Amino acid sequence: MSDLFAPAIILVKPQLAENIGTAARAMHNGALTDLRLVRPFCGWPNTGAIQPAKGGHVLLNDVQVFENTASSLAEFHVVYATTARSRDMTKRVITPRKAAEEMVAHAKARQKVGILFGPERTGLTNDDISRAQVLINVPLNPNYTSLNLAQAVLILAYEWFQVAHAGQINDEKIQLRNPDQDQMASQHMLENMYTHLEQALEDSGFLRVTEKRQGMMQNIRNMFARHPMTEQEIRTFRGILTALTQFKK
Amino acid sequence: MSDLFAPAIILVKPQLAENIGTAARAMHNGALTDLRLVRPFCGWPNTGAIQPAKGGHVLLNDVQVFENTASSLAEFHVVYATTARSRDMTKRVITPRKAAEEMVAHAKARQKVGILFGPERTGLTNDDISRAQVLINVPLNPNYTSLNLAQAVLILAYEWFQVAHAGQINDEKIQLRNPDQDQMASQHMLENMYTHLEQALEDSGFLRVTEKRQGMMQNIRNMFARHPMTEQEIRTFRGILTALTQFKK
Repeated sequence: MSDLFAPAIILVKPQLAENIGTAARAMHNGALTDLRLVRPFCGWPNTGAIQPAKGGHVLLNDVQVFENTASSLAEFHVVYATTARSRDMTKRVITPRKAAEEMVAHAKARQKVGILFGPERTGLTNDDISRAQVLINVPLNPNYTSLNLAQAVLILAYEWFQVAHAGQINDEKIQLRNPDQDQMASQHMLENMYTHLEQALEDSGFLRVTEKRQGMMQNIRNMFARHPMTEQEIRTFRGILTALTQFKK
Repeated sequence: MSDLFAPAIILVKPQLAENIGTAARAMHNGALTDLRLVRPFCGWPNTGAIQPAKGGHVLLNDVQVFENTASSLAEFHVVYATTARSRDMTKRVITPRKAAEEMVAHAKARQKVGILFGPERTGLTNDDISRAQVLINVPLNPNYTSLNLAQAVLILAYEWFQVAHAGQINDEKIQLRNPDQDQMASQHMLENMYTHLEQALEDSGFLRVTEKRQGMMQNIRNMFARHPMTEQEIRTFRGILTALTQFKK
C-alpha cells in the first residue's frame, strides 16, 4: 500500500495547538502523514504543538494551512466528514471500519482521500459537511459518544492501518520467550513427559485405583495439551518432577 | 450482551490522576464500567481525575483499589495483558479485534474477564504479565507504536463495543435530511425528472446531434443514478430546470 494515497487529515478551525499536536501523534500511530489545517485559531506554525505531538512531531513541518475548507480539499477525489451527531441532510453514513475499507480501495485506484474534522467544541458546519460525499460516525456507547479531537483521529488512523497493512498483521501468534533458542516442544517430548509423570504418580500411589488410571492420565494430557509448550518448559516441568520424587525419597 | 460480564480495566500503579480520569472517559465511550486500580501512585480517591474524565466521571465512584495485581485479579476467569513491546516469555499474542471477539465469547459463557494496563512510562512488569493468559498488542505504525494510557484503553473499549453491540451497528446507512417527511424518490419520479430534463435540453438545442442523443441521455441518467435521491431533491432539481428554461425564454 503506497503511503502516497493514504488519506489526509484536515482539521477545520482547530482551537488549540495542543490538539493539533496530539492529532499528529495519533496520525503517526496509524502511518498517516498528510495533515492540513483550515484557519487554525491558534495560528500556525505554533511551537505549542511540538511537545504534545511526541513522536508525531515529524509530521508538523509539512503541515499545510488553507484559508477555507474548499481550498483545502481542491485536489481530493473523495471527501469524508466526521460527525458525532446527525445532520439535517441526506448522506451515506458509515463506520470507521467501513470507511477504512473504502479508503484502501480508493488508494489502490490512486484516488486521493481527505477526512474532515471540525473544531473541538462545535464540530463541522453544515456548509463544510455539504462538501463531503460520505459521513463517518463512530459507533460508541449511545450514552456517551463524545471523543476529543486526537481520539477521533486515532480511531480513523487505527482503522486505516488495520486495513491498509492487513498483510503485516497477525490476528494471533505465539510469542517465543527466546526466539533464537526456544523451540516449541515436539509431541515426542510431550509423550516422554507424560511417561515421566505417570511413573512418578505411580511411585507415589496416586494411580493406585486401576480402573481410574486411564481417565486420570487422559485428564492430565488434556490439561497440558490445551496450550503449546516449549522445550524449555518441558525440561523445567521434568526437573520439578525429579525434585519432588527425590524429596519424597 | 449483559454488561455484567463486560471486561474490567485494571490500571497497575498509574502515576497521574489525570490519566485515571481520561481512561475512565475512554471506558465510558465503549460502555465499560468496571475500573480497578493497583497501588495508584497518585492515591485514591483523587479529585484530579474528575475533570479529565468528562462524562466518564460516572465510573469514578465505583473504582476499586487493590494492594497488588494478584488480588485485583482474584475473581476473573481470564486475564489479558496489554503490552507495546515483546517480552521474554512464551504467550499467545493477539490483536484488540481478536481479543474483543474472545471477550464477547467469554461474556456469553458468563466468565469474567480482566485487562491489565501497566504504569504510563514502564508498562507492566514481567511478574504482572505472567498472571495473564494472553497478551494484546495493538497493530500500529512500526515506526511509532506508542499510545498513552487513555488511548490504549480507548482502542480496547472501542473494539469491545464494536463486537459486543454489533447488532446495533450499521456499517452503512442513509441518513435522511428529515426522517419524518423525507422520502427516497421512486424510480417513477426519477424517470419523470429525466423526461423533464430531456425536454428542456431539446428545447435549448443541447441534443441537436441526433446520433449522440441516446448516449448523452444515458450518461446523464448514470450521473443521477449513482446515488439515491430524495423526493425533495428531485423537486428542487425540477424547479431549477423550470427556472432556467423560463430565464431562457
